[in-house]
Amino acid sequence: MNTAFNENISVDCVIFGYDLKSLKVLLLERHLHKAGGKDLIFKDLTLPGNHIRNNEDLDTAAQRILFELTGLNDIYLEQFAVFSDPNRLDNPKDQQWLAAIGKDPQTRVITAGYFSLIPLEKYYLKQNGNDTMPDWYGKNPRWHQLDRIANMAFDHARILDSALQFLREKIMSKPVIFELLPEKFTASQIQNLYEVILGKTLDKRNFRKKLANLEFVVSLNEKQMGVAHTPARYYMFSRDVYERKKKEKFTLIT
Amino acid sequence: MNTAFNENISVDCVIFGYDLKSLKVLLLERHLHKAGGKDLIFKDLTLPGNHIRNNEDLDTAAQRILFELTGLNDIYLEQFAVFSDPNRLDNPKDQQWLAAIGKDPQTRVITAGYFSLIPLEKYYLKQNGNDTMPDWYGKNPRWHQLDRIANMAFDHARILDSALQFLREKIMSKPVIFELLPEKFTASQIQNLYEVILGKTLDKRNFRKKLANLEFVVSLNEKQMGVAHTPARYYMFSRDVYERKKKEKFTLIT
Repeated sequence: MNTAFNENISVDCVIFGYDLKSLKVLLLERHLHKAGGKDLIFKDLTLPGNHIRNNEDLDTAAQRILFELTGLNDIYLEQFAVFSDPNRLDNPKDQQWLAAIGKDPQTRVITAGYFSLIPLEKYYLKQNGNDTMPDWYGKNPRWHQLDRIANMAFDHARILDSALQFLREKIMSKPVIFELLPEKFTASQIQNLYEVILGKTLDKRNFRKKLANLEFVVSLNEKQMGVAHTPARYYMFSRDVYERKKKEKFTLIT
Repeated sequence: MNTAFNENISVDCVIFGYDLKSLKVLLLERHLHKAGGKDLIFKDLTLPGNHIRNNEDLDTAAQRILFELTGLNDIYLEQFAVFSDPNRLDNPKDQQWLAAIGKDPQTRVITAGYFSLIPLEKYYLKQNGNDTMPDWYGKNPRWHQLDRIANMAFDHARILDSALQFLREKIMSKPVIFELLPEKFTASQIQNLYEVILGKTLDKRNFRKKLANLEFVVSLNEKQMGVAHTPARYYMFSRDVYERKKKEKFTLIT
């Protein structure tokens, strides 16, 4: 076994970030220049990803690659799917790009998709991406608003969509959403978070009723201060209550 | 792209079967003979698995390989994990076997684990395994009782264990268990099924109480006939009731 890159196996990371306003995803730029020149043929966006090394497992590779490309470190990454369509690199512009960077465009590559969901303000990106990477890949790691992404490389639009579906299912069954909110949050803040992830507007009265029924979302005797509008009540998430309720709700037989 | 086998990527299938008594898993034999001779050096057990072809995705490969090796066709297969430890083939006997069959034992192989759970009586295995395979692999597909398996190839014991954990979590959150029971079943039958999957004895009174609380397990006005012991009541699973209850129970906010 050696440390060479494995040409058949890669990982791609879908890192969702929330800034208390909108849902964003972390993307890099991919460039294709004319041979020998600086003229740009095209530019599009990719997920942070690359080939694994032969001496690392998929989880290790995902952490290394995310760090090398974006500077993000020690993020909880979860493998959510493997993308193995034999035609996933067959788009003509992808074939052209692979040939231009010296790869065999016919090489079969499957990729493991990794997922994370982080509060944006806590993390800082590398200013210039990975300086050891040539100009054609991995530049300008930036947070992109989900509804404004056009032109992605390979099957990355499909991988991103699959991760979004995974996220939508996850917020319905696990309390991951509270990791994105401040310790004390208002009902509007949690509703906005559900809305941006689900990609639709929710009825306010209905939402408040459901929120009131969640025993693990505790209403605090405390309101916003120094706001122009009527101050809203604060809530907090109680993991203790959540864990106890979860045990009681177990649907099938133990 | 071609139809050659991809040396870096394989799939392995963990097919659990239940015969109303015990939980079994479908395994094949792997043999190592002395070079040129018929003397057996060792024999152990493997999951049905092989390398994918470059023109098929992982799901297609899993279906093909399971069919070729065991004769099982049209089984619902679910990918449950990918095994990518760089040292997963490093056991000396595995290295010896790989060299003997003409492979480079240093080649990095990651494998996607597929899972299924089927009622045993419905399916028939090939009598002799795959006749196109040489003697060293894929012979004698047989159902093995889970608690009596020794000596598995590669990291297959770990893959099997991981699949069993996956199954144990699944039966707690999804009604998959009813696919293994006859349409009408007794409380003892469903308790035995939970016990063999969980690998522990459950308290009978407690279990009956929980069973009575599951609205989607409907008690029938009908009892066993022609049995020596006191005839037991029959139950059935109502998918309609289950689907309605599931909607009501949604833990977080919709």
